[in-house]
Amino acid sequence: MGIINDNFMLYNDTAKHLYNAYAKELPIIDYHCHLSPEQIAKNYSFKNAYDLFLGGDHYKWRLMRSNGIDEKYITGDADDYEKWLAFAKTLPYAIGNPIYHWTHLELKRYFDIDDILCEDTAEEIWDKVNEYLKKPEYSAQGLIKMSNVETICTTDNPYDDLRYHKELKDFGTKILPTFRPDINGEIKSDITDRMDYFNENGCKLSDHSIDKMDDDKIEKIIFLGEEYAKRGWTMQLHIGAMRNNNTRMFNKIGADTGFDSINDFQIAEGVSKMLNELEKRDMLPKTILYTLNPKDNYVLGAMLGNFQKAPIPSKIQFGSGWWFNDNRDGMVAQMTALANLGILGKFVGMLTDSRSFVSYPRHEYFRRIMCNLIGEWVEKGEYPNDEKALKKIVEGICYYNAKEYFNF
Amino acid sequence: MGIINDNFMLYNDTAKHLYNAYAKELPIIDYHCHLSPEQIAKNYSFKNAYDLFLGGDHYKWRLMRSNGIDEKYITGDADDYEKWLAFAKTLPYAIGNPIYHWTHLELKRYFDIDDILCEDTAEEIWDKVNEYLKKPEYSAQGLIKMSNVETICTTDNPYDDLRYHKELKDFGTKILPTFRPDINGEIKSDITDRMDYFNENGCKLSDHSIDKMDDDKIEKIIFLGEEYAKRGWTMQLHIGAMRNNNTRMFNKIGADTGFDSINDFQIAEGVSKMLNELEKRDMLPKTILYTLNPKDNYVLGAMLGNFQKAPIPSKIQFGSGWWFNDNRDGMVAQMTALANLGILGKFVGMLTDSRSFVSYPRHEYFRRIMCNLIGEWVEKGEYPNDEKALKKIVEGICYYNAKEYFNF
Amino acid sequence: MGIINDNFMLYNDTAKHLYNAYAKELPIIDYHCHLSPEQIAKNYSFKNAYDLFLGGDHYKWRLMRSNGIDEKYITGDADDYEKWLAFAKTLPYAIGNPIYHWTHLELKRYFDIDDILCEDTAEEIWDKVNEYLKKPEYSAQGLIKMSNVETICTTDNPYDDLRYHKELKDFGTKILPTFRPDINGEIKSDITDRMDYFNENGCKLSDHSIDKMDDDKIEKIIFLGEEYAKRGWTMQLHIGAMRNNNTRMFNKIGADTGFDSINDFQIAEGVSKMLNELEKRDMLPKTILYTLNPKDNYVLGAMLGNFQKAPIPSKIQFGSGWWFNDNRDGMVAQMTALANLGILGKFVGMLTDSRSFVSYPRHEYFRRIMCNLIGEWVEKGEYPNDEKALKKIVEGICYYNAKEYFNF
Repeated sequence: MGIINDNFMLYNDTAKHLYNAYAKELPIIDYHCHLSPEQIAKNYSFKNAYDLFLGGDHYKWRLMRSNGIDEKYITGDADDYEKWLAFAKTLPYAIGNPIYHWTHLELKRYFDIDDILCEDTAEEIWDKVNEYLKKPEYSAQGLIKMSNVETICTTDNPYDDLRYHKELKDFGTKILPTFRPDINGEIKSDITDRMDYFNENGCKLSDHSIDKMDDDKIEKIIFLGEEYAKRGWTMQLHIGAMRNNNTRMFNKIGADTGFDSINDFQIAEGVSKMLNELEKRDMLPKTILYTLNPKDNYVLGAMLGNFQKAPIPSKIQFGSGWWFNDNRDGMVAQMTALANLGILGKFVGMLTDSRSFVSYPRHEYFRRIMCNLIGEWVEKGEYPNDEKALKKIVEGICYYNAKEYFNF
Repeated sequence: MGIINDNFMLYNDTAKHLYNAYAKELPIIDYHCHLSPEQIAKNYSFKNAYDLFLGGDHYKWRLMRSNGIDEKYITGDADDYEKWLAFAKTLPYAIGNPIYHWTHLELKRYFDIDDILCEDTAEEIWDKVNEYLKKPEYSAQGLIKMSNVETICTTDNPYDDLRYHKELKDFGTKILPTFRPDINGEIKSDITDRMDYFNENGCKLSDHSIDKMDDDKIEKIIFLGEEYAKRGWTMQLHIGAMRNNNTRMFNKIGADTGFDSINDFQIAEGVSKMLNELEKRDMLPKTILYTLNPKDNYVLGAMLGNFQKAPIPSKIQFGSGWWFNDNRDGMVAQMTALANLGILGKFVGMLTDSRSFVSYPRHEYFRRIMCNLIGEWVEKGEYPNDEKALKKIVEGICYYNAKEYFNF
Repeated sequence: MGIINDNFMLYNDTAKHLYNAYAKELPIIDYHCHLSPEQIAKNYSFKNAYDLFLGGDHYKWRLMRSNGIDEKYITGDADDYEKWLAFAKTLPYAIGNPIYHWTHLELKRYFDIDDILCEDTAEEIWDKVNEYLKKPEYSAQGLIKMSNVETICTTDNPYDDLRYHKELKDFGTKILPTFRPDINGEIKSDITDRMDYFNENGCKLSDHSIDKMDDDKIEKIIFLGEEYAKRGWTMQLHIGAMRNNNTRMFNKIGADTGFDSINDFQIAEGVSKMLNELEKRDMLPKTILYTLNPKDNYVLGAMLGNFQKAPIPSKIQFGSGWWFNDNRDGMVAQMTALANLGILGKFVGMLTDSRSFVSYPRHEYFRRIMCNLIGEWVEKGEYPNDEKALKKIVEGICYYNAKEYFNF
């Protein structure tokens, strides 16, 4: 009695048709993630289900803490199976949470498991997954290969030597670096040399976390943006995180462990200024704006229109529902705002933003939700049932728009 | 295979009944728009489909820019058909955008065209529309007459001589001026004389754009509001625009060309102060609050209740989804907030806010969406299927509430 | 032709089953309300329908003002029936307003009245309700008893002598005090003595209204929170009200009369700081965060995760839709945010926050809406139709989670 079947998240006939005919088989372009290039290059093998599913996944850690699970069974010294069991006990209460869906998609797609993960099934699933993980094709590289991924963009320190990206040059899937300077720190004078180095190694995107909207950050973005424009790169701005809220836990287990959340500062004038200053100099790069606070969906969706410019279709993009919005409701809200304010048909679509090697089904999840949304409009008669036009839109959002936009 | 049919946007039987029985035939009161009184008075004739549909419509220009169309084909020196074609090529990608619906409603209602506008149909529709436009009844005045419009309120500079409004005194549809001072500039000492002059010429509304919420603006609104109260006018406050974001394009083609968007400043305390200061003096005029940022729907919806006062039903109104919210989702969000927080049945309803002579079907669009929302509640059993009560609510929102509220 | 029937707000079979099998019969824990302990202790008898339904209910007063009713018929010197009639005339226009549903639920559950309240039925309903109110079991205590309420937490001044709570010790339903210091005023040095006194008298919760987010308020909350942690209390933070907006009416009829609304200040950093400072000292009490501004649903929903800690499941709670969000859409928005970001299955659920003795059907309203939301997910296949798991979730949210969390 699993939940993953052919019609998962597809609630109308048009959606089913669009998904199966156009979305399902297209390769994945994962243009923003946090996979470790080292783990890919070294073709990491996963010790067990815990290592694969829970090892570095702070989304799941938060969920377990919300269920009152002791830290011992999350990041502490309990053994791996105990942690797995604690997660399995938590999951049934997480009704409506994307992790519920992601987990069962992952179990089904990679391990052909239909059972719902809960206390009763924890051991059986543990054994089954671990059995699979012994096979060589379940290594880091193997998982990527079986996921139909054409391109992966990792997220890298500008001073990284990119040795693993170089090693991976002939690995079928393109593993490209992303230039991610820390705009909270000093931007050093050799930064453009580093851009050149990244450029030589296939970099096509940069990324920045804007956790405060002040003049210093704005100026840095303007400086950097101009350099990206010269290189034809895309600039990603991730706006609105509030990190390391829990000092006690930060001191204990460090950053990126599940103690970040959503800030609520004003963003409209700052973002406008950044983009305008670059546009004034005719040096505005392709840009993707992501918001962590869904209150700003319409601010960003409307901002795009101020800076669109030929010949690139939707040169300024509204990024897919990010982090705390990376769920069905967040995706629908983002796509609805984009549709109302701009051109949904030119959206570059989904990315995983993930640290996990089994997160590719999130593209499937997105594609199903997108086909369902579009199918709903068509079935209501708000858009004609025009096969050619719908094919173009769906295939574009799944794959072709990103391919052309990023120049992969 | 067009999308405009009798049941467009009506998804339940109650909605269909309410729309056809009560909403469809009522005249239009368009109490806020940006039509040119000069064009009406001179009975402007449209050169072609471009002139009518795209000429001054920056909503559509933005959409085209978002599709990567070169400015040459938007506001540049391409010929009119080339621009029309560029728009036609853009439209199919704009799935879920209100312009998709507006355009096809306009083609259907004024030109009996069912075809979907796209590259393949662009020429045929161009020819057909242009043929119609040769007829005298497709002039500015003719289009108004065939649209069942009872009253139009234009938006005017306080120093306008209103000559065109005077010329139009005996034109069947009332063409009334709206007093729109620029509260970013100086309010001169003769401003009350100008109000008197507008008042003599049928003015019943004022309008203000609040693009910043500072003490200067608040004081000006308080001063002006008191004067409006004396004259029995309604005060409109449009809150939250951020204009002319793109300096390069502003220098090239000026204001109101599609480079405005949504700001996100705090509004609650400022709006409360304005209204309270006026209410303290017992000089608060009828007021309509509009927000450009949908994050503030509940702030405004709740604000109304602080200042309601007999004998006017819903003296403080929450304005219909404005500009970037003037779409199905924005309207539903605004009406849902209003219903939850106040009295939807006393809402003064829709306005076009438009510069286009074929924008009246937006009233139809609104009425369909409103009937659908109400019909949904009725069919779910959340409101009784009481013909008399529903007739009163629907007819009120479409027509009678505005007529009584504004005193037309 | 009433609207209250077995399937009210239940739109799918799973919802109907869950509501009837698990939600319907469970007792009510009303852990936050504004009932008068004195009225309970003195077993107040209601004079008539006005006294019971409209007497102190500023939600309804606002609604009447929004309909243009003169203050005379709201809080003025009109006689009680005239006020009742004015309310009855208002109600039919309030389509989509929660008061429409609450009123008819109350009429049905306490007085077996199916009729819709409107001008035509006002007198008959007036008579019928008044007849019931003569019965002794329709006194304050009687109404509580017939409402299946296990525990009520009132909201009390720290300097209250709690004499009525003491008097009510043996009244079947537990009537417990809540410690509610005014953090706008001075916190006196004997405040911890008062906590001890409240503690001795069964207090388990505190409450605070954060109408401004400044350092002074943050420091007070930190000080108080530490004391609550020592006593094992839960700290409630109600964030975002803007009170007494209408000075003229405040001077005339005082506070809590329907002139409050929603503020829009930034909250993320302030709330994070409060909770972090307490957590640093390992003195963070159980905490419930409520927001009046729905723009902050995702800010609070995400904030919880930063401070969850074993062994309490969802130690930091996201409070149910409060005041202007206490309606179907507000509840669905709050539960959807919570589900996406945390663990809905551990939510402590509904409270009335009410001054009315017939507000308990709001728990029924909430339970129906919650079962409908969960039922929808199940019927779509997003959560398995697992009777055991669903029973646990539904019963937990209705009753058991609160019982365990608050330690009642």
